Amino acid sequence: MKVLVINCGSSSLKYQLIDMSTEESLAQGLVERIGIEGSVLTQKVEGREKYIVKQPMKDHKIAIKLVLDALVDKENGVISSMDEINAVGHRVVHGGEKYNSSVIITDEVKKYIEECFKLAPLHNPANMIGILACEELMPNTKMVAVFDTAFHGTMPEEAYLYALPYDLYKKHGIRKYGFHGTSHKYVSQKVAEVMGKDIKDLKIITCHLGNGASLAAIKNGVSIDTSMGFTPLEGVAMGTRSGAIDPAIVTFLMKEENLTIEEVNDLLNKQSGVLGISGISSDFRDIEDAAFKEGVHRAKLALSIFEYKVRATIGSYAAIMGGVDAIVFTAGVGENGPETRESILKGLEFLGVEVDTEKNNVRGKVREISKDGCKVKAFVIPTNEELVIARDTLELTK
Amino acid sequence: MKVLVINCGSSSLKYQLIDMSTEESLAQGLVERIGIEGSVLTQKVEGREKYIVKQPMKDHKIAIKLVLDALVDKENGVISSMDEINAVGHRVVHGGEKYNSSVIITDEVKKYIEECFKLAPLHNPANMIGILACEELMPNTKMVAVFDTAFHGTMPEEAYLYALPYDLYKKHGIRKYGFHGTSHKYVSQKVAEVMGKDIKDLKIITCHLGNGASLAAIKNGVSIDTSMGFTPLEGVAMGTRSGAIDPAIVTFLMKEENLTIEEVNDLLNKQSGVLGISGISSDFRDIEDAAFKEGVHRAKLALSIFEYKVRATIGSYAAIMGGVDAIVFTAGVGENGPETRESILKGLEFLGVEVDTEKNNVRGKVREISKDGCKVKAFVIPTNEELVIARDTLELTK
Repeated sequence: MKVLVINCGSSSLKYQLIDMSTEESLAQGLVERIGIEGSVLTQKVEGREKYIVKQPMKDHKIAIKLVLDALVDKENGVISSMDEINAVGHRVVHGGEKYNSSVIITDEVKKYIEECFKLAPLHNPANMIGILACEELMPNTKMVAVFDTAFHGTMPEEAYLYALPYDLYKKHGIRKYGFHGTSHKYVSQKVAEVMGKDIKDLKIITCHLGNGASLAAIKNGVSIDTSMGFTPLEGVAMGTRSGAIDPAIVTFLMKEENLTIEEVNDLLNKQSGVLGISGISSDFRDIEDAAFKEGVHRAKLALSIFEYKVRATIGSYAAIMGGVDAIVFTAGVGENGPETRESILKGLEFLGVEVDTEKNNVRGKVREISKDGCKVKAFVIPTNEELVIARDTLELTK
Repeated sequence: MKVLVINCGSSSLKYQLIDMSTEESLAQGLVERIGIEGSVLTQKVEGREKYIVKQPMKDHKIAIKLVLDALVDKENGVISSMDEINAVGHRVVHGGEKYNSSVIITDEVKKYIEECFKLAPLHNPANMIGILACEELMPNTKMVAVFDTAFHGTMPEEAYLYALPYDLYKKHGIRKYGFHGTSHKYVSQKVAEVMGKDIKDLKIITCHLGNGASLAAIKNGVSIDTSMGFTPLEGVAMGTRSGAIDPAIVTFLMKEENLTIEEVNDLLNKQSGVLGISGISSDFRDIEDAAFKEGVHRAKLALSIFEYKVRATIGSYAAIMGGVDAIVFTAGVGENGPETRESILKGLEFLGVEVDTEKNNVRGKVREISKDGCKVKAFVIPTNEELVIARDTLELTK
């Protein structure tokens, strides 16, 4: 049983073919600049050179056709025929209030994904284009939608409702949805496995720290709160996103800087975060270089603000769960930033966690990083969102 | 030495005359509907009937003239001449980045208070009117400005900076200022006294929970973070204010509901909070009645959302201080809501605090409410912002 996982953006597309008998990734690839001059497909297969296809791709259908060609390519492919692909799992960002778990894609599902365009105007339309293109090219293959919001569907009302007029929730669906669900789900399940415990007995705080960053409070195996909200703008500071700010700043900026709605959204989503503070980059590696090699104050500041907000969120999640058993770091910075992890955990000794500097000197591997005997344990767990998508797809289509 | 404390709003004015030798309040009063039909002054003196003066007051100067008349009134007053008022302490909401402590009012100070109009458009202009009117009526009396923001001037950069483009901080002063400073200062000092400890050795979380609500993290006697931000809109849910929400909701609402900047600000500041959720009232007593006597779901929900956000903030402040020694409740709901206090503290046992239901059955009195022997202690400490203003005024003018 082989599952193709598709994550479709507005001008790009990530894919992975996974053999579900071993859960091994057979091939993974990225198509960039779809519909733009300079389209390119790059496919990686373990132990081989990168396979690169440069040719015009005017739309996603052509891009997906090339993905399928690349997978069955005699020299560079990994399967002999498209028939070997038993099912396709699509990452869909927003499942609204209806889908708290993955579903087989039907007309009804597609209609609802469209209804959620308003809630995720940048993502859901692109995800939908990928679904439609795949359906055209593989009319007999079952497709599954795996939603980024679904894992957080278990949040209680007091966590997901804002203190806004209740009618606005009813009318527009303004509430906290949360994102990165597949990642929070994967690493929380994995850490329970690593700890040799039943996830139903654990209180876990998962820190997905990449260019987009969110934390989740996972109690007895279900998400009870998460830091992203109605949109992926809320929460901790991120690469280019402000995270939570005084909501009055939005209109203050519109007034004082004479910005339109689009301009202020652009400012908060693309010019803020550690990029905005440092003025250097949204990439933590660049900022760390500037901070530690050149001693640039605003670069140090960007890192401490980020770490501060993550630390504070960890504290708030311990409070709402009534304690914590494990803190998990994942995604780009979470997996590859030992200094960041150490700074975040510094000061949390009162919770019963202390980082072991030596064990923490690790990148991209499953590892316990807290000192032996700590009451609260800390871990690095590399995330694998594609595997969650593939597992859900297998589960629903087998 | 007697100090008159003035808290001037746009159409109202609160005052208190305090004898600093005993720190006793000699008289306290409220003038309402200044510049509006139906102006009225109400003065209370311990052990006497309320003294009510109804007469047209077209501006604050006339209102303050009547306050002075009421204080020296032969039958209803408490002093024999205005000369007994040695100094006037004015509450001023916003002291910007310049004033981290109280100051004697000079032309320079007034100029700066005016510069802060942009930061506190509803409050600072009203505070200024009060200052100017008092100066005219008492030209030889020293005046002191006590800022609501000043106590939080000790916050470190990582707490007060938002993850926004740094230039916006430099250009517009967009940063966290925090409010309720005199209250957080008063109750934190008082709790140290009650505990018989040096405040420099303590980590205190103060919860000022009134119609406006904010928390502060006070480490070694200074505020290192607080939940209100650039404006008093940020933080936990309040009577009518939303508190922190996904900033993307602001523009989403403007677009979908076709709101202007003023309308969306009005919605977030005056139609949200527990009023917005419950649809009943901004007054916690009304909501509690609906929740507990009539079992109204949205009333219960409003209370749990409020309590949830306060509990989460307590957790985050424990995290940034590296622990906590005392949690203090003050202001309307904090002093008079035993059920609310108990709900907030429930789940924080992992921190080392447990509420003692019997001790917690108290309203408006200094009382330890945690069980004997708790590592982290909880207290009710009635606030006294006027006394802080009077003390600072005495200190600077004696």
